[in-house]
Amino acid sequence: MPHNSLPSSELYRDEVTKRPVSPASAPRALNPASTFDRLCLRSLARALRGVPLRIAFGDTIEAVASAAPPVATVRVHDRPTLARLVTSPDLGFGEGYMDGRLDVDGDLVALLEQVYRHQLESPRRARPVDWLRRWRNSNPVTRARNNVRRHYDLGNDFYRLWLDREMVYTCAYFANPDMTLEEAQAAKLEHVARKLNLRAGETVFEAGCGWGSLSLYLARHYGVRVRAWNVSREQIIWARARAAAEGLADQVEFIEDDYRRIRGTCDAFVSVGMLEHVGRRQYPMLGEVIDRCLHPSHGRGLLHFIGRNTPAATSAWISKYIFPGAYIPSLRESLSGVLEPRGLSILDVENLRRHYAATLAEWLARFENAADEVRAMFDERFVRMWRLYLAGSQAGFLSGSLQLFQVTFARRSNNEMPLTRRALYQ
Amino acid sequence: MPHNSLPSSELYRDEVTKRPVSPASAPRALNPASTFDRLCLRSLARALRGVPLRIAFGDTIEAVASAAPPVATVRVHDRPTLARLVTSPDLGFGEGYMDGRLDVDGDLVALLEQVYRHQLESPRRARPVDWLRRWRNSNPVTRARNNVRRHYDLGNDFYRLWLDREMVYTCAYFANPDMTLEEAQAAKLEHVARKLNLRAGETVFEAGCGWGSLSLYLARHYGVRVRAWNVSREQIIWARARAAAEGLADQVEFIEDDYRRIRGTCDAFVSVGMLEHVGRRQYPMLGEVIDRCLHPSHGRGLLHFIGRNTPAATSAWISKYIFPGAYIPSLRESLSGVLEPRGLSILDVENLRRHYAATLAEWLARFENAADEVRAMFDERFVRMWRLYLAGSQAGFLSGSLQLFQVTFARRSNNEMPLTRRALYQ
Repeated sequence: MPHNSLPSSELYRDEVTKRPVSPASAPRALNPASTFDRLCLRSLARALRGVPLRIAFGDTIEAVASAAPPVATVRVHDRPTLARLVTSPDLGFGEGYMDGRLDVDGDLVALLEQVYRHQLESPRRARPVDWLRRWRNSNPVTRARNNVRRHYDLGNDFYRLWLDREMVYTCAYFANPDMTLEEAQAAKLEHVARKLNLRAGETVFEAGCGWGSLSLYLARHYGVRVRAWNVSREQIIWARARAAAEGLADQVEFIEDDYRRIRGTCDAFVSVGMLEHVGRRQYPMLGEVIDRCLHPSHGRGLLHFIGRNTPAATSAWISKYIFPGAYIPSLRESLSGVLEPRGLSILDVENLRRHYAATLAEWLARFENAADEVRAMFDERFVRMWRLYLAGSQAGFLSGSLQLFQVTFARRSNNEMPLTRRALYQ
Repeated sequence: MPHNSLPSSELYRDEVTKRPVSPASAPRALNPASTFDRLCLRSLARALRGVPLRIAFGDTIEAVASAAPPVATVRVHDRPTLARLVTSPDLGFGEGYMDGRLDVDGDLVALLEQVYRHQLESPRRARPVDWLRRWRNSNPVTRARNNVRRHYDLGNDFYRLWLDREMVYTCAYFANPDMTLEEAQAAKLEHVARKLNLRAGETVFEAGCGWGSLSLYLARHYGVRVRAWNVSREQIIWARARAAAEGLADQVEFIEDDYRRIRGTCDAFVSVGMLEHVGRRQYPMLGEVIDRCLHPSHGRGLLHFIGRNTPAATSAWISKYIFPGAYIPSLRESLSGVLEPRGLSILDVENLRRHYAATLAEWLARFENAADEVRAMFDERFVRMWRLYLAGSQAGFLSGSLQLFQVTFARRSNNEMPLTRRALYQ
C-alpha cells in the first residue's frame, strides 16, 4: 500500500481545478494582497528554492522558486491557507488541497517529485516531538485493527473501481515494460512465489493478506496449503468468497486476526505490504512471530514493504488521513528490528521502487477515470484526498524518497535454496 | 578473502596427521592420564554437547560429545594443550593444531561445520574485552597497510600455487554447478560487471583491487577507464605488469595507496573483499569516500564482502595469525555504517554464501596438492595454519556462520538502472 512521504512542504497538481467543491470549502473572497501575503509567498519561495514551481495567491500576486520554467502553479485561495503553508506545510498543503482552498495547475506528480527531490537534498533535523510519534507507532492490537480497517474497509466497491481485477493493492512487477497492470500484478505474484521456492504440499503463512490474491495464487499454482491473516473484515469476507468460488476453501484458510496471534508451523512465511503498518516498536514482535512459526531448518520467507534510504518521520497528513499508525522503515531498520535478532539469513533484497511508480501511475489514471463514481460514493473532498495520496506516492517513488524492498530470508541452516537467481527469470 | 569465524571452540580435521612436524613442536611424551585430564575431556565434551566428534588424549582416554557416529577424532598430544582447549578454546585449538600438539583424524571441514552450527545454536554473551577489539578495529592508515601486507604480501608465488590463473582471491560465482574454479571466477567478474550496468567510456573506481583481475576485466570487456587502489605492494606490481602485458596500461591505473586517499569522480564504485579489512570504526569514512567520488546523479556501485547474520567478534586466532584488524559485519552493520548515512539506495543484495563454500573447497584441494611446495617455501607450521584457515572458512560458509553479500547501490536519483535483474541471467 503506497505511502507518500509528504515531508515539510507538499505542493501538488490538480488537473480538474474547474470542478465545483462543496460549498463549505469554497474559496473565500480575497482581500487585496497585503504585505503579510507577500512575506508568506517569499518565505515559501525561499523554502523551495530551486524547485521549478510558481505559487500564486489569488489573481493578484505570485512568486517563483526557481528560474527554470515551472512545472506547475500552486494557487492559494485564502489567507489562512497561505499562512498555514508557511507554518505547517505538510498538513497545511494536504488539508488545503482536500478542502479546495488551494489548487494546482499543471502536472501534480511532476511537481511533487521535484519538491521531494528538493527535500531530500536539504533534510530537516529531527524534531523534539519524536517521542510522540514513537508512541503513536506502538500500535497495540486494538488500535492496529482500527487503523487498518479505516483504510482497507472503505468498501470493496471503491477499490474495485481502480485496482486490477485480482484486487492486488501492492506494488506490481513489470517483468517487461509493456505489461498491463493486470499482467504486472500476476507477474508480481509469480515473482514472489518463485522467490519462496515452494514445493507442493508445503505450508505457507501469509501475514496481512489483503483480498487474498497471493494466497490463492500460491494454492492454485504451487499446490501449497496456505493460512492467511488479516484484520480487515471486508477483505477477509471477499477472500473467503473467492476461495469458495474457486474450490480452494480446503487449501486456503483466511483468518480474521492480528499477525501477533499467528500460531503453528510453516515452511514459508510471506508478508506483502504489511510491515508499513506494523510500526517500529512492534518489529521485534514480528520477528518473534516469524521465528516461532518458521520451520527450524528449511524455513524461508519474504517481506515486501515500502522503505526509505534513511529513516524519516511519516508525513503528518498521511498519518492523519490515509494510514494512521504507519511507519516506513529504512532497510537497516527492518533488518535490525525484525530479521537480524532472529539470526535469519538475508538471501536476496530487490528494490522495486520504479515498479511502484508505474503501478501508481496506473492506479491514478484509473482513479481519475472513476472520479465521478468515487464522488458519488463519498464526496469531492474524498476524491481530492485520494488523488493527493496516489499522486504523492507516485512522486515519492519517482524521486527516491520512497523505496520498495522485497527481502528474501531463510533459516541459517537452509542449504537447499537455489544457488543462483536464474530460475526467477525463466 | 575468506575469514573463518573460529568461535569459542574450534576443532578441525587433518588428513595428513602422519606428516612429520618440526622438532620444536613435536608431541611431548605423555604421563599416564590423570583425574585432571579426565576433567578437561569431560568439560570439552560438555561444551560441545551434541556435536558428533570424539576427543582423545593420547592413546589412553577419550570422550564423545554426542551419541551420533563421530565425523572426526581430535587427538590431543599433551596436557598443556588439553588444558588450553578448556580455558582458551579458540587460540588453544588453532595454535595447538599449527604446532602439531593436536591432530584431527577424519573430515576436518565436516567437523568444523558441526562445531559452528553448535555454536550458532548456543551463542555466548558479549565479552568485556570488546573495547579492546574495537580499538584494534580502528585501523589507522599505517596499521591498516601493515595488516594487509602481512597477508597479501606472502608472495605471489605462494598464491599462484592454489588460486585460479587470474589470481582472484574472493568468492567465485558458480553460475552453473559444473563450472571449474577458473570458469566460476570469470563468471563472478562478469556478474559484478553486469550489476554495475557499465557503459563504454565511463570511469570505475575499485577500492582494494587485489591482483587487478576485476579492473582488467572491466577495461577489457566493457571499455571503461579504471582507477584501482590497493596497499599491497606485491599485488600492485603484479597488476601493473598484467595491464602492461595486455596493452591496458592507458586504460587501467593501479595506485598503491589506502582507500581513504581515493580522490576524483567516478560513474561506478566497486569494492570486492575489502570491507572485511576496513574495520567497523572506519565504515563512515568509507561511506564518505564513496559519497565524495560517486557521480551525483547516475552514480552506482557494488560492495562485495563476507558478512554474518548477526554481529559477532572476530576469532582471536584469525586476528592473530591470518587477518589482523579484520571485522566481519552483519548486513545491517554495513548498511548503517557505510551506505545509509549517505542516502544511497540499496538496489540489490545477493547472498553467495554457498558459492564461497564451493570456492574454498577448490582452494583447499589445490592447496593440499601443493602442500610440499608450500612447506618448502615456509614450513610445516605454516602449512597447518593455512589448512586450518581454509578449512575453517569453508565450514563457516557451509554452516551459515559466514555469509557473502553483494550489495548493489545507487544514487537516490538514479532512475536509469535496469528495471529488472533479467539481464544478469542472459
